[in-house]
Amino acid sequence: MNYRFYNARILTMQTTDILEGELWVQDDKILYVGAGGDVAAICQKLSIESILWDREIDCQGNLLLPGFKNAHTHSAMTFLRSYADDLPLQDWLTKQVFPMEAKLDGEMIYHLTKLAVLEYLTSGITAVFDMYLTPETTAQACVEMGMRCVQVSGVSGQEGFEASLAKMEERYHTLNQLDPLHSYFIGFHAEYTCSKALLEQVAVMAHKYQAPVFTHLSETKAEVEGCMERYGISPVKLLDSLGMFDYGGGGYHCVWLDAEDMEIFRKRNLTAVTNPGSNTKLASGFAPISEYLKRGINVAIGTDGPASNNCLDMFREMFLVTGLAKLKEQDAAAVDALEVLKMATVNGSLAMNLPDTDVLAAGKQADLIMIDLHQPNMQPLNNIPKNLVYSGSKQNVKMTMIRGKILYENGAFTKAYDVEEIYRKANEIIGSLR
Amino acid sequence: MNYRFYNARILTMQTTDILEGELWVQDDKILYVGAGGDVAAICQKLSIESILWDREIDCQGNLLLPGFKNAHTHSAMTFLRSYADDLPLQDWLTKQVFPMEAKLDGEMIYHLTKLAVLEYLTSGITAVFDMYLTPETTAQACVEMGMRCVQVSGVSGQEGFEASLAKMEERYHTLNQLDPLHSYFIGFHAEYTCSKALLEQVAVMAHKYQAPVFTHLSETKAEVEGCMERYGISPVKLLDSLGMFDYGGGGYHCVWLDAEDMEIFRKRNLTAVTNPGSNTKLASGFAPISEYLKRGINVAIGTDGPASNNCLDMFREMFLVTGLAKLKEQDAAAVDALEVLKMATVNGSLAMNLPDTDVLAAGKQADLIMIDLHQPNMQPLNNIPKNLVYSGSKQNVKMTMIRGKILYENGAFTKAYDVEEIYRKANEIIGSLR
Repeated sequence: MNYRFYNARILTMQTTDILEGELWVQDDKILYVGAGGDVAAICQKLSIESILWDREIDCQGNLLLPGFKNAHTHSAMTFLRSYADDLPLQDWLTKQVFPMEAKLDGEMIYHLTKLAVLEYLTSGITAVFDMYLTPETTAQACVEMGMRCVQVSGVSGQEGFEASLAKMEERYHTLNQLDPLHSYFIGFHAEYTCSKALLEQVAVMAHKYQAPVFTHLSETKAEVEGCMERYGISPVKLLDSLGMFDYGGGGYHCVWLDAEDMEIFRKRNLTAVTNPGSNTKLASGFAPISEYLKRGINVAIGTDGPASNNCLDMFREMFLVTGLAKLKEQDAAAVDALEVLKMATVNGSLAMNLPDTDVLAAGKQADLIMIDLHQPNMQPLNNIPKNLVYSGSKQNVKMTMIRGKILYENGAFTKAYDVEEIYRKANEIIGSLR
Repeated sequence: MNYRFYNARILTMQTTDILEGELWVQDDKILYVGAGGDVAAICQKLSIESILWDREIDCQGNLLLPGFKNAHTHSAMTFLRSYADDLPLQDWLTKQVFPMEAKLDGEMIYHLTKLAVLEYLTSGITAVFDMYLTPETTAQACVEMGMRCVQVSGVSGQEGFEASLAKMEERYHTLNQLDPLHSYFIGFHAEYTCSKALLEQVAVMAHKYQAPVFTHLSETKAEVEGCMERYGISPVKLLDSLGMFDYGGGGYHCVWLDAEDMEIFRKRNLTAVTNPGSNTKLASGFAPISEYLKRGINVAIGTDGPASNNCLDMFREMFLVTGLAKLKEQDAAAVDALEVLKMATVNGSLAMNLPDTDVLAAGKQADLIMIDLHQPNMQPLNNIPKNLVYSGSKQNVKMTMIRGKILYENGAFTKAYDVEEIYRKANEIIGSLR
């Protein structure tokens, strides 16, 4: 399909200046981003004779920008949304989450992932970095629905999460070949759920494939203290000492890093994926975002799973990234909103190895969203990027396109989805598990 | 107009249980809330022969609840949204906000308030507690648009804010008679912008009318320290010692209260209006919400003005009320979501002296909203009230009704508004002030 978006404001994220003009999509790619007006003249510039449009969309001055990259989630945990809130963290995990997860099967995860995909689209999220129990069925749900998905192994010593390294290696091959929308990373659940032997084997795998590794890392103070007791050093130092990060990667949460940990992140070009909604709701603490930025560490943003957040909303996360930094530093100038927009787009693409989705430019993948500026919370137009971070909400997402396909527009999903059936299934599954 | 809402889920806020049934509106009031089905049987129960519906609305299982009460705002500050963010607090106030406010006139405030009203409606806010420079034109904008508005005097020693107590007293009469949608409270800007003599005179006025008083109170640590330097006691103790709160009232922000201050709040039945979005963005700190609840202090929620937030979104505020408490207490169980829903509805009505708007019940004002549960972030339906607080967003607001009038429905405003003209005016005003 070929789309022409005209009368658009465009935030390419190559800069944070707003361009006025148009954007053309041909099949899965962006063909043109630039000044608007004379289609024939643009065709000439592109050395094409003409182009047959499937749709020409008058953006009415609304904003196009790259879709948001949700750099840490557990999509299928939708079934536990608002199932057990306002509980102490350990009770929540051990009495509510783990027993319920033990009952899940791959088919359930397929259906529950679909519910998450719907929500991603309403929030302008065009790619997710997912870790969960049955990667095959998560991949199936995402690919069927047209959602871009990078999965990471959650191997651990615990039951449920894929227990075998051989299985991870097999998936590294099969799930990286599945579909252009899907890829798969080496990873593990967390230091505290793996034996040292297992961690060493994961590091060997990273070396074998010269691959980056991601994991839950220094999410809670208790986690870091536990590692100190077990090994006498922090999780980041332990993993680095095993050669885990010799080919890059990074951590999810990264709330409790010390200066030496950060130095390792800088040196190894690791990404700190921050999850402020989850860290707030579970009282895990404040990630030192200002410190990461000062050191030039790549920071990306994730929602975490919907059991611990409880929503999959990049607008909430963006506000919290800068808001919590301001509170932590007691400085209203901490972490500029423009940095936050970069985290939610470009930096996520870098972390997830999706370089063709980072900015809006000719040749890049057509993963983009339209923001409705004709809404009161976007007015007046003093500063559109800051409006997005400080005032934006799901209600502003007018369109979400992934790989050149419009999956959500004007509050409605593509007709390819049976939305009510997805809701029905999710309720049936949680009903059957209670 | 008479409306019948059927096939509804109803959260009356008399309890937090969900009722399945219907709700009838006659003119400005709720006529019936209860089990659904047989209209004739309900009519008989109500001792009426029959009723002629203007509209019968199939709620399709969606949720009705009382509209949110925004218990602290400066509506017209929309013009400064995203005008000057990511600045230290004092620079922001003295170099950006004050010089721009000095250029405002009543007509501008009229137009800028209208923009805020649009945004309130998208967030399900049906009443606001406003303090700003020209109460007459704020009232005019709200009444014209059908927004319920309680204004509070912002008298202070500073230029701009109404400098004369005589004027406040005059407004106390005129603006309390203006319209059923409008009322006016005695108040003042803040301790730090008023002389002691002025504060004493406000207290005299409170006694004369046996009236509650509201003010900005202990928002920042610096404010409390300044008062300690000037008077040797905290702002709350100073004001109480002047008899300011002998007839009730309360404070906006209330971030830095000590145990003695809280004891005064408890004894005088004062309301602490919390503004977590603003306190986050301006790095003012964490209000001690758990402490307030333990003492039985009435806590309500406000957005503060859009220059310091930057949006007027009760969903963001609700998440932050409990989220910041969880972070402050390092306890994921702090401040239950159901308490937060009460703050956003019932407690706000109590603070604003709007007892007819607190819950959904026969005889109450028809100030209510419909929440779209057929959205992915509201599914599955494990716990609807917790979904609202932890996962809800503006995109879930399907309808906003004030005094029996539907002002916003399915993403569109009532045709009585010229929405694009309101946007144009707001942009023109900020353009002219630069």
